[in-house]
Amino acid sequence: MKDALYGGVNAAALTPMNADLSPDTGRMAAHASWLLANGCNGLGVLGTTGEANSFGLRERVAILEGLVARGVPAARLMPGTGCASLADTVELTRHARDAGCRGALLLPPFYYKAPSDDGLFAYFAKVAERVGDGIALYLYNFPQQSAVPLSLDLIGRLLDAFPGAFKGVKDSSGSYDNMAAMVKRFAPRGFEVYSGSDEFVQKILAIGGAGCITAASNANSHWGGVVYAKRTGAEADAAQEMLTRTRRAATAVPLIPGLREVIARATGDAAWRTIRPPHLPLSAEQAEAVWAAWSAAGALPLPNTMKPGAE
Amino acid sequence: MKDALYGGVNAAALTPMNADLSPDTGRMAAHASWLLANGCNGLGVLGTTGEANSFGLRERVAILEGLVARGVPAARLMPGTGCASLADTVELTRHARDAGCRGALLLPPFYYKAPSDDGLFAYFAKVAERVGDGIALYLYNFPQQSAVPLSLDLIGRLLDAFPGAFKGVKDSSGSYDNMAAMVKRFAPRGFEVYSGSDEFVQKILAIGGAGCITAASNANSHWGGVVYAKRTGAEADAAQEMLTRTRRAATAVPLIPGLREVIARATGDAAWRTIRPPHLPLSAEQAEAVWAAWSAAGALPLPNTMKPGAE
Repeated sequence: MKDALYGGVNAAALTPMNADLSPDTGRMAAHASWLLANGCNGLGVLGTTGEANSFGLRERVAILEGLVARGVPAARLMPGTGCASLADTVELTRHARDAGCRGALLLPPFYYKAPSDDGLFAYFAKVAERVGDGIALYLYNFPQQSAVPLSLDLIGRLLDAFPGAFKGVKDSSGSYDNMAAMVKRFAPRGFEVYSGSDEFVQKILAIGGAGCITAASNANSHWGGVVYAKRTGAEADAAQEMLTRTRRAATAVPLIPGLREVIARATGDAAWRTIRPPHLPLSAEQAEAVWAAWSAAGALPLPNTMKPGAE
Repeated sequence: MKDALYGGVNAAALTPMNADLSPDTGRMAAHASWLLANGCNGLGVLGTTGEANSFGLRERVAILEGLVARGVPAARLMPGTGCASLADTVELTRHARDAGCRGALLLPPFYYKAPSDDGLFAYFAKVAERVGDGIALYLYNFPQQSAVPLSLDLIGRLLDAFPGAFKGVKDSSGSYDNMAAMVKRFAPRGFEVYSGSDEFVQKILAIGGAGCITAASNANSHWGGVVYAKRTGAEADAAQEMLTRTRRAATAVPLIPGLREVIARATGDAAWRTIRPPHLPLSAEQAEAVWAAWSAAGALPLPNTMKPGAE
């Protein structure tokens, strides 16, 4: 699709931390700049991979402001602003708008289980009403993690009730059929569908999707950029194959500490391994396994020299 | 057990709201005072039933401060302070301590699914270290809602590593066997086990549990108070039977709007029906059903005159 606000490859950016677990926005800004120069068009900061829900309200505000203050273009950032509560979600989404972001990624309220579609509609309606204009709202469908699936009917109702407010979706359901159904039904209305998995980038682009927002893009965005630029042909096919292989390598161990491990090794910067509980760093065996998996995928050394993400 | 900080009946207090969905701390303080005069020893404010996770960080601070400012004794309040993130959890728990609460109820971090026990241990260790002394930490085991069960082994490790910090548990697993195992293993160390279900109040007290923290206590605490005072004998047995019947009446429809409906009817105060999405008020049919169920349980009129919870 043309003219998508975040069309192309967006890394669900990791959040580097200091030894005391505070966010390291200097290292994060350097990583962001590296990603934007290496295949990414935008950055899904403070998503699941960024451990957003391990950071508090004030920390999330500070991370976004720290990135912008360090020169990362706000217009390229799609921060996750969907919290368990209506109030924090509205506050963070307004803040993202005021910081200059064009869009924000909204999880459904994820504490209460099995909310009705009517209840979810009422929730997102309140968010849209209270946030108002000036920022595009992207829905984040990740039922394995949020435990709250977003149905096509719900999305359709929101598009009908709030024209222009809900601009797209990140679909991390893992189901290509679900993504394709979203494209078919809603892309003609300008709705941007981003794959949450690297495996479907080429396919979703071919049918009118907008691109991807993925965890492995922290390290494989070079190939995503090639797929987005070329779309078809041998080079695009080979790059898609690398996306698929690296996705599988990344998910052979726990995803977030696994990507931290790959970047720590690629950059020689051990600070990348610092992670907030309940997540834990990989065991020594897992660390060897994920590095071996990236090597077996043919992905090492990484196609661009990954620089230590420090100032 | 003797000398439990919140020994007895604690209502998982509902949070009344104004028409704009803002918390109505005046109505809430009046309800709190009514509960403390009608069988409750304490109040589990800002728990699941209180829709804590529908309120933002600042709102949760304001609710607790509003109650204390209106004369609700802070020492009787056990606020829920467990958020998805480490930072918000630490901030709210410190705030509860500074407001005068003796304890706080901590959900596990509930966004990421299937965290390891090692990861949960690391998380709660950070909470304990960062909060420090001056407030007892109660663990909130509610796997149906949080999706993160707290194992007996995890609790044992926390008690060993942080003597005196983790003071008890609210077990909403619905499993009496699980509660009883917690009592057997940890009560000898002063650990307070509160049943999250009205059905097990008499049983858990009999084996050395501390009491209960339940949703239906918003309307059935009179009987809970009788069970706690009498423990055994015909009067206690009859009161336990009323707890069990009203619990079943309360869970015949969605629990939180159902209790709001019962209190709205008992008090003649329609404002009690206001609820935050994704929760929704009951349908007309459900509203009739829950009132009929309380009537069929023999629980109407409520045993104490329930007054409109307004100032």
